[in-house]
Amino acid sequence: MNFHDFIRDGDGWQTLSAERQFSNPHVEVYAARVKTPTRPDGCAWTVVHRKAAVVIVPMTASGELVLVRQERVPIHATIWEFPAGQIDEAAGHDSQVMRDTGLRELREEAGYELAPGGEWIALGHFFPSAGFTDEHSHLFLARPVTPSPRGHEHDEHEAIVAARTFSIGEVRAMIASGEICDANTLAAWARMAATGIV
Amino acid sequence: MNFHDFIRDGDGWQTLSAERQFSNPHVEVYAARVKTPTRPDGCAWTVVHRKAAVVIVPMTASGELVLVRQERVPIHATIWEFPAGQIDEAAGHDSQVMRDTGLRELREEAGYELAPGGEWIALGHFFPSAGFTDEHSHLFLARPVTPSPRGHEHDEHEAIVAARTFSIGEVRAMIASGEICDANTLAAWARMAATGIV
Repeated sequence: MNFHDFIRDGDGWQTLSAERQFSNPHVEVYAARVKTPTRPDGCAWTVVHRKAAVVIVPMTASGELVLVRQERVPIHATIWEFPAGQIDEAAGHDSQVMRDTGLRELREEAGYELAPGGEWIALGHFFPSAGFTDEHSHLFLARPVTPSPRGHEHDEHEAIVAARTFSIGEVRAMIASGEICDANTLAAWARMAATGIV
Repeated sequence: MNFHDFIRDGDGWQTLSAERQFSNPHVEVYAARVKTPTRPDGCAWTVVHRKAAVVIVPMTASGELVLVRQERVPIHATIWEFPAGQIDEAAGHDSQVMRDTGLRELREEAGYELAPGGEWIALGHFFPSAGFTDEHSHLFLARPVTPSPRGHEHDEHEAIVAARTFSIGEVRAMIASGEICDANTLAAWARMAATGIV
């Protein structure tokens, strides 16, 4: 069995059994028994299932980055981060769904749009906490972005209190100081630094 | 109430109520009602509680980085990453506990030790999935590290299949290609890139 379409059995991995122990619309907890390449008889593991996400790095024509400032309830903090949103599981995981999800979040959270003819560049994916959850986030650079004539449209369940552009040097300084502290923004920065984008 | 000693009430944040809906030794799920700076009457949120972690960037005297290759059950993959481990909650969160935890994981997972007189440099913390869990990881650079005469000592619950040094250029290429895909390693890289360490 597969928890979802991205993490599959194969290459020595197989979910032998998975008992759902808790579930609500946001999270599911499984007591799983999983065969691994070095443990052919399987090992017991708690797997927390979450929807996959898309993280967008919005870059303007002048090379600035758009961040949103969002209240994050589990950590009791309001933080600057790149816009992001979860992928509807029923829609699947293909590149068009990820692009649609990312562009929707870019407009709703940040109030920006990808300019006509702009680039939508995949920066790969990452796993926020690979010993704990199958959650994964797909990273994309969108450039150039421009303010949307429709403005932003914040979800009533979220609390985004601001959105604005920062220079690459400002974002670098916020990462160095520890002010930027979420995995989405840090993972996207690592990929961009390693590939020479920033 | 506070879920643990790192994320506290204050500055407009307060956990008004939290009903534990699921718990095992690895994870707890709460249905919480939390007052936020913009939502003084509180909002309902699912908060998944996990132990905090320590991530170690081990750098040798010649400037190479030590990575471990670990089977990660929730994502069905064996990946290269920096050594890491969870902090015993009973021990608290002070700097000595974090250093002890980090040095223990460095030896057990990677088979390396901090050289006498070596540096233990805080690179701040990060939140793997701030909309979902209060989990947070403290990042440290340890340099120089040397192979431990006692070797490694793998936890029977874990499956670390290799540990070895990589040049900074090799790690950068593994991040650029997407081979390195865990938030611990990417977040540490972002902090080191932003501060000029790599």
